Amino acid sequence: MLSRVLACLDANLEQSLERLFELLRHKSVSTDSAFRDDCRKTAHWLVEDLKTIGFDASCRNTSGHPMVVAHHDGPRADAPHILFYGHYDVQPVDPLALWKDDPFDPKIRELNGHKVICARGASDDKGQLMTFIEALRAYKRETGSLPVRVTVLLEGEEESGSPSLRPFLAAHRDELKADYALVCDTSMWDRKTPSISVGLRGLLGEEVVVRAANRDLHSGYYGGAAVNPVHVLVRILADLHDENGRITVPGFYDGVEETPKQILDSWQALGFDVERFLGPVGLSIPAGEKGRSLPELVWARPTAEVNGISGGYEGDGFKTVIAAEASAKVSFRLVHRQDPLKIREAFRAFVQSRIPADCRVVFHDHGASPAIQLPFDSSFISRAKTALSEEWPNPAVLVAMGGSIPVVGDFQSLLDMESLLVGFALDDDCIHSPNEKYDVNSFHKGQRSWARILSALAGSI
Amino acid sequence: MLSRVLACLDANLEQSLERLFELLRHKSVSTDSAFRDDCRKTAHWLVEDLKTIGFDASCRNTSGHPMVVAHHDGPRADAPHILFYGHYDVQPVDPLALWKDDPFDPKIRELNGHKVICARGASDDKGQLMTFIEALRAYKRETGSLPVRVTVLLEGEEESGSPSLRPFLAAHRDELKADYALVCDTSMWDRKTPSISVGLRGLLGEEVVVRAANRDLHSGYYGGAAVNPVHVLVRILADLHDENGRITVPGFYDGVEETPKQILDSWQALGFDVERFLGPVGLSIPAGEKGRSLPELVWARPTAEVNGISGGYEGDGFKTVIAAEASAKVSFRLVHRQDPLKIREAFRAFVQSRIPADCRVVFHDHGASPAIQLPFDSSFISRAKTALSEEWPNPAVLVAMGGSIPVVGDFQSLLDMESLLVGFALDDDCIHSPNEKYDVNSFHKGQRSWARILSALAGSI
Repeated sequence: MLSRVLACLDANLEQSLERLFELLRHKSVSTDSAFRDDCRKTAHWLVEDLKTIGFDASCRNTSGHPMVVAHHDGPRADAPHILFYGHYDVQPVDPLALWKDDPFDPKIRELNGHKVICARGASDDKGQLMTFIEALRAYKRETGSLPVRVTVLLEGEEESGSPSLRPFLAAHRDELKADYALVCDTSMWDRKTPSISVGLRGLLGEEVVVRAANRDLHSGYYGGAAVNPVHVLVRILADLHDENGRITVPGFYDGVEETPKQILDSWQALGFDVERFLGPVGLSIPAGEKGRSLPELVWARPTAEVNGISGGYEGDGFKTVIAAEASAKVSFRLVHRQDPLKIREAFRAFVQSRIPADCRVVFHDHGASPAIQLPFDSSFISRAKTALSEEWPNPAVLVAMGGSIPVVGDFQSLLDMESLLVGFALDDDCIHSPNEKYDVNSFHKGQRSWARILSALAGSI
Repeated sequence: MLSRVLACLDANLEQSLERLFELLRHKSVSTDSAFRDDCRKTAHWLVEDLKTIGFDASCRNTSGHPMVVAHHDGPRADAPHILFYGHYDVQPVDPLALWKDDPFDPKIRELNGHKVICARGASDDKGQLMTFIEALRAYKRETGSLPVRVTVLLEGEEESGSPSLRPFLAAHRDELKADYALVCDTSMWDRKTPSISVGLRGLLGEEVVVRAANRDLHSGYYGGAAVNPVHVLVRILADLHDENGRITVPGFYDGVEETPKQILDSWQALGFDVERFLGPVGLSIPAGEKGRSLPELVWARPTAEVNGISGGYEGDGFKTVIAAEASAKVSFRLVHRQDPLKIREAFRAFVQSRIPADCRVVFHDHGASPAIQLPFDSSFISRAKTALSEEWPNPAVLVAMGGSIPVVGDFQSLLDMESLLVGFALDDDCIHSPNEKYDVNSFHKGQRSWARILSALAGSI
């Protein structure tokens, strides 16, 4: 039966690309309210598509963008039950001038000898979520049903901190609880080697606005006497790291564990070296904490990064102004047992203690999620590893992830459900950047991989 | 004869306001190339207006915005010859949302019991330059000529670093050289007290762009390993000042002199206190070098200010990105004998030495002009001081200025000509900020002041 499903996927690749292109044309930028209606239309498009596969599918309103929820009874009432999670929202496209093509008019291009799908969301996460939906569609077509019971949950706020997700999971616990979750928002180890992610860094997002004078000031009249909020802000941000790259916020490292040597050794064996990782983006020297290996830095150590800074005149030419305010967006990647809420409190106190008497500071909360550590050795992960290894040239590897997928933690804490993190993105997909792409090979073999995983899980979980 | 000219100015205030409004409607933002044509039209409008007063006036092309140059022979060939300088360009209007009225649709409003002209450029410098032109117009109308020989030079690039000014002065030295220059781009001491500025800080403008990876990076995948150019930049900017507010660029204080105690005392006697100076902008604590009085800080001490900073995601919401580059616009106010070109070199070396191996830095030059110190006691300044003291309730005071008027240095070095710095702006004019205004009283009594000064200078220089 699996071979028929795989053959069906091979035969229908063109049609599956057309469906993906339709989805990619939706401008579902969740962080910018100008695209609110586009997000809603994207959700509706997915509902209609899931209905064609026999799902009982609907859009569920939230205080933000809607959730897509769909249920399929599978072959029988006692079949294993999985929840598939993806997100239909995408990152903003600025700076637009750096895109070679319109980010919302997908095209197939040839890139370094590979056919790639070029569009915002091609990889993160529309291309990825459609690999799963296409695998389901092929099962339905070839067998009249699905091999397991399936619930689909597609979120529209993943790129903007998922404010509605936890309340939604809490309110629909019984409806959404399954045996296991499948999450498709991660990368291959390389073009030939699939990976399963068993560790994920958490994320804390904070925005800091420093206010000084009640208006912008002329730097000639006031310079030397009026406090400059840009100066206050840059001193605070410069203080965030010490000379060894360690973060100086008091208590920040509480809950951070040393990674066991055997794990570090297994990562080292992957050939995760500086040239391979940093070379393609034009860098050659790891910049974080001193004395740590590269995989440890991005998979198992916490970070603080300024994701944006703004203040004063930023246009062409020059304006001799002392700004009334300056702001920065700062995110922390968290590992192990770091508590995001305690760190938020400590960071705000750290900033507040550095604000001079003549300034004020305002904070904006941009989400908080703890890190995740999944078991290396469950039978669920073993089955998926075997299935993936049959599809790709190299066996699947177990890795950790530098990025955050907060939903995995929420599935643990709210639905008591572990997740399988499998994805087919590549490191050069330029997610969150101009010229995002997804390899046609990722899209095609991703579909086939899910078909194999579903087949492997159909026996039992 | 002076009394007839003053009466003429009083009788024609309405018409002079209408002319100013026409000038203010021109969107002559010099720093933004979108307004190139508006600048050209503004210059032409001024040429036509000067012709109606009997000037031989023309627009002179430069590589940037045109100069307005106009000559009037005055009453006789051996009459004193003055050069009047003003600028017709204005600052950008952003953030536009903070303006109560359209910045290019001037209106008379009542503000704190005073009639004020509201528009971008109302004070800086269109309103100010028109006070002089209106005084000339009244002389012409009442006497058929002007009391002295007059050359008018109106620049269109003062707000964007005056790139064409020095080459233009050098190329037209014979045409522009006069006995003395009159510059109208400064402020009153207060509503009742006119001032003559005898010290002006210089200005050095630099833009620093730090580049790291060859594209924006996802802070989850790369955070902890990829160098963040915002971090590099904020550390450099935080290093610019030590804990006492002194600037740390090596050699920065070379050429800075201690201001004589009697001068500091005379400034202190002006009642230049923290509450008066910082209170109206919502501040209460001088923020610059420790151990210096407020007038010294803004008139006689050099500064370094970050006028703008930019990097990463600055829009609504959050984007977990490590930017490919970050940039800052930094200006230095200079005093006494500080050499702007040496300081530029020292600043660039200071920055370069803090750039990690994996980053590059690019500098953009935004102008350099030394500080000016004019004689306190020339007969030229004495005559002007007496004339101003006759017009206003309080006698004129000699002060220094925190801002830069580079043309004054250029007149010294290129035309061997000293300047008289008189202006009628007020501290609350919000120049360079939203809701710029100019008091109708400044405009009216400014005209009368120039009539008196011209009369005083007519005897001899």
